[in-house]
Amino acid sequence: MTAILVTGISGFVGGHYTRFLLDHKNNYNIHGVSRSAPAWDFIPNKEKVLHSINFHQCDLLDAAKIHAIIKEIQPDYILHLASFSSVAQSWQSPAATFLNNTTSFLNIIEAVRLQGLATRILSVGSSEEYGIVSPDDLPLGEEAAVFPVNPYAVARVSEEYLAEVYVKGYHLEICRSRSFNHIGPGQSTQFVVSSIARQFAEIAVCHKKPVIRLGDGTIVRDFIDVDDVIRAYDAIFEKGIAGEVYNVCGGRKHSILDIVDCLSRLTQTPVTVEQNRDLLRPVDNPVIVGSYEKLHQATGWRPECSLSTSLKKIFGYWCARVG
Amino acid sequence: MTAILVTGISGFVGGHYTRFLLDHKNNYNIHGVSRSAPAWDFIPNKEKVLHSINFHQCDLLDAAKIHAIIKEIQPDYILHLASFSSVAQSWQSPAATFLNNTTSFLNIIEAVRLQGLATRILSVGSSEEYGIVSPDDLPLGEEAAVFPVNPYAVARVSEEYLAEVYVKGYHLEICRSRSFNHIGPGQSTQFVVSSIARQFAEIAVCHKKPVIRLGDGTIVRDFIDVDDVIRAYDAIFEKGIAGEVYNVCGGRKHSILDIVDCLSRLTQTPVTVEQNRDLLRPVDNPVIVGSYEKLHQATGWRPECSLSTSLKKIFGYWCARVG
Repeated sequence: MTAILVTGISGFVGGHYTRFLLDHKNNYNIHGVSRSAPAWDFIPNKEKVLHSINFHQCDLLDAAKIHAIIKEIQPDYILHLASFSSVAQSWQSPAATFLNNTTSFLNIIEAVRLQGLATRILSVGSSEEYGIVSPDDLPLGEEAAVFPVNPYAVARVSEEYLAEVYVKGYHLEICRSRSFNHIGPGQSTQFVVSSIARQFAEIAVCHKKPVIRLGDGTIVRDFIDVDDVIRAYDAIFEKGIAGEVYNVCGGRKHSILDIVDCLSRLTQTPVTVEQNRDLLRPVDNPVIVGSYEKLHQATGWRPECSLSTSLKKIFGYWCARVG
Repeated sequence: MTAILVTGISGFVGGHYTRFLLDHKNNYNIHGVSRSAPAWDFIPNKEKVLHSINFHQCDLLDAAKIHAIIKEIQPDYILHLASFSSVAQSWQSPAATFLNNTTSFLNIIEAVRLQGLATRILSVGSSEEYGIVSPDDLPLGEEAAVFPVNPYAVARVSEEYLAEVYVKGYHLEICRSRSFNHIGPGQSTQFVVSSIARQFAEIAVCHKKPVIRLGDGTIVRDFIDVDDVIRAYDAIFEKGIAGEVYNVCGGRKHSILDIVDCLSRLTQTPVTVEQNRDLLRPVDNPVIVGSYEKLHQATGWRPECSLSTSLKKIFGYWCARVG
């Protein structure tokens, strides 16, 4: 049996990844840690899925506990998803975001280092690491300079550098991703696409006024379906090179207003857009679009899910839950 | 009166900076925090100096306590020196080094942010942030890419990025330095020049065998006297621009073996060199030399103390203490 540990298993990506493992990896012993047990209202047959894994309740800030769990499991793989992942929230709680995310990561890699394990670790980073980029640099390749402009992004860059030091200095097997904005059913409405899709569902199901409230609609992001993201993580585990960093992105650019337009068309609902100034950020990146060429060359992976397919799934998820 | 808070005041740079303030700033109310009271065996009239300042015993990991101290003092300036500053030690305790240094810094800037103070803060960084550089990039200007290759350097880069986010996102008045290898009387023998000077003092005073033990003698650094460093910090407080980063360096390159040769000549003591493999590091930067042009242009500062003058002071310090 192959042992895999998924941190933050109770979250959005953790749930989708667990389902993927159960569907595709027969010989895997799946362990998950999180502060709270998975709710996973987006996973079909949730109870069956939960019974197929080993869930360990653990705050990753508890170094001794995560050390003991890793000692017990002796994982072949660790997918480190656990983090505070909202940029907006990181502006509200900059110190807590930075310290939570870096401490959690350090507690894991320290446990692996001190126990001398050959665990392959995937450190999940973010496109936010690139910061404010010149249009000439788009689409962003991994060689582009990092320039974090919010507290969340600083934590991600710090984790990347820590990973590199642990690979080169202590010979740990850590690959790194820079994952672009992922979207899918079950994501918190702290994230913009989930928030917009939920508002469309409330208009459709609860007959709310056809008004979509959002922050800066002009910012452009490279949105990628969570199913494509988890296939990318699997590909990196299988074929990624320790110390390397891989963009996980769709290679497509869409503004927030494009998302509104697409959902408006899909649901045949004309809407007006209202700016909620509370959702504006002190500093923001106008455009982030990536290239997945490096990951494709290394593993053959490429994204498969179109934006409209993703948005249909997310809208459907919310329609079943609002009202 | 102008209020200044010096973190890590009990340390090597903290002691020299305090003496500088007392000599040059009549209207300053000097506050210092540190885990333990200053020992400062390198400061003349130590007792008088100690009576001229307000010392607050405080572990900077204690966010509530540092918040209360800053609330009481309402500092016009904060010089943030407190840190674990040994690269060698950071390889032994990577997580503790990273978390201590970043948490301490965050606790200070969070206190200033949450209290809405206009405090000018100097975040002291390190030439280690540049990492392994190409000879073509020497001497290093501030525009050179950072590439931290040890845990200490990752913490320093993280602090720099955090400072930048707090300047741009929360409008704090933080300047940043990248300080190169400083040397002077009172520095711990964890640092190579102090270690070598102490060995020469032991040969001269205790008649030990003329053998100098060190790690990699071929690495080249830009050593700068601590008196020049503290004048640079004063210049940055006076004329530095918030958000900017300034190299604090001598602009000279010397290998570790050059230090041995210089002390050998100064003390007229022929020595042999033995490599202590325990002092080698997993990853090291072969050459680091900086340019201080930006700081000079902004403030008029330039280094004044020659290497041989520094080494004479350090050798004299150790001669009075060994045996």
